[in-house]
Amino acid sequence: MASFVNRRQFTIEWGYCDPAGNVFNSRFFEFFDWGTWALFEKALGVRPADLAGVFGIIGIPLVDASARFLAPARFGDVVELSSRVREFRRSSFDIEHRLTVSGSLAVEGLETRVWAKRHAADPLQIKAQPVPEEVITRFQVP
Amino acid sequence: MASFVNRRQFTIEWGYCDPAGNVFNSRFFEFFDWGTWALFEKALGVRPADLAGVFGIIGIPLVDASARFLAPARFGDVVELSSRVREFRRSSFDIEHRLTVSGSLAVEGLETRVWAKRHAADPLQIKAQPVPEEVITRFQVP
Amino acid sequence: MASFVNRRQFTIEWGYCDPAGNVFNSRFFEFFDWGTWALFEKALGVRPADLAGVFGIIGIPLVDASARFLAPARFGDVVELSSRVREFRRSSFDIEHRLTVSGSLAVEGLETRVWAKRHAADPLQIKAQPVPEEVITRFQVP
Amino acid sequence: MASFVNRRQFTIEWGYCDPAGNVFNSRFFEFFDWGTWALFEKALGVRPADLAGVFGIIGIPLVDASARFLAPARFGDVVELSSRVREFRRSSFDIEHRLTVSGSLAVEGLETRVWAKRHAADPLQIKAQPVPEEVITRFQVP
Repeated sequence: MASFVNRRQFTIEWGYCDPAGNVFNSRFFEFFDWGTWALFEKALGVRPADLAGVFGIIGIPLVDASARFLAPARFGDVVELSSRVREFRRSSFDIEHRLTVSGSLAVEGLETRVWAKRHAADPLQIKAQPVPEEVITRFQVP
Repeated sequence: MASFVNRRQFTIEWGYCDPAGNVFNSRFFEFFDWGTWALFEKALGVRPADLAGVFGIIGIPLVDASARFLAPARFGDVVELSSRVREFRRSSFDIEHRLTVSGSLAVEGLETRVWAKRHAADPLQIKAQPVPEEVITRFQVP
Repeated sequence: MASFVNRRQFTIEWGYCDPAGNVFNSRFFEFFDWGTWALFEKALGVRPADLAGVFGIIGIPLVDASARFLAPARFGDVVELSSRVREFRRSSFDIEHRLTVSGSLAVEGLETRVWAKRHAADPLQIKAQPVPEEVITRFQVP
Repeated sequence: MASFVNRRQFTIEWGYCDPAGNVFNSRFFEFFDWGTWALFEKALGVRPADLAGVFGIIGIPLVDASARFLAPARFGDVVELSSRVREFRRSSFDIEHRLTVSGSLAVEGLETRVWAKRHAADPLQIKAQPVPEEVITRFQVP
């Protein structure tokens, strides 16, 4: 079964770019975050700001992020970010992001996040929870 | 004669917001910059990245910016940014930005920018130039 | 009586700068925010993260911000930001920021903030409160 | 032989943090960039803005970045970032970043960068160059 993909087009703004004229690296990690929230909204039909409340979690905190920079994106470029869950494990999952410029892959990203509740004994700590089966199912495309 | 207005809708992202849950103030000045480039593109029909080349300028550097924060914008809010040139003077101009959340004005901004060339005698300096009449005309709506 | 001034030196990072090689404008508003928190910490002897708890407020939200850009700051420049309260009014106050590069004024900023509590009847609203006399006194230099 | 380490202490600012009160993930990649430039400045004795000119390169572009988030950093935390080159290869190298909060490791990062020139035939392309032996030597601590 294939995994649901969210696609988003946007334009590279002046303020995203560094003195070399390229998008500064940290911005791509912002883009990945945009992509993850939008993917979850589309797959689950739940607004990002309601995700925690609906599922009784504190959120889906990031534990690992990485990116490979293959080609630059520059001011005025129209880019497409496609995001999909690559794998669900018991209480964590990997989200894959691909950013293309004019159809060519420019940046590849990977985020690992956990399905997390507040710790019962210590509310300052978080505790990974099994991802509900109903959530996982929603990311599958028949 | 009325002035051309550019409108842009977008969603407030998680990474734009501060620990109080509101968009952090500096982000609004990024939004204003987005609005100005988009306004110039729509009015002049010139891609932002080509603006300098087409008009023989180094750009439209910002000399003054201000904002009034009337109401917060928060994660997941769909906002509208409307931008228009309020006034053209000889070599500078004011751009007015209004950001609304659910139709209510949340933030008002004002940017003053100059139409600037590189200084002939000292290329590290910039020099304000008269805004061409053909440019000003394009911002007027009959 | 003079007003307490906080000074902070820092270096302009690569990621602060835009394709023209200058600090992108929104970053200066971030710097002003740094300056305000540091000023309050020095004047009041209270850590920023404890300010709300110690004074029973929700914080010192920004209602107005402005900047004049006189000269650029560029990658590698060592700058100095000096911040001081220009005026306390009943429940709001103005903070003045001056950023210098090699001793020359490059950017002037002004923030207006309010001393704010949560609204008793509607906790989603905030309500301006009189700034305590003990707070105002701490910003005065004999 | 050990590798030269650059250490830098700084305070987590309000604007770095997200609605959960934690530093937003993309900021750590900004911090890593700060660390790399500072490390090169200390090891080579060359100001970051002069690096390209001194060595006849266009810079040290990032081709790969990753981070593991072990514990949050929050508003007001005083953190230490330590950065060192983990390995030099022919024309690329890995820089390791460790961010601690109160002495505990909070975030681990890794950047891969290349020693890059402009391509002779196509100035819009870059070309990896062997890292000069004199550069590598400077990062070694006897």
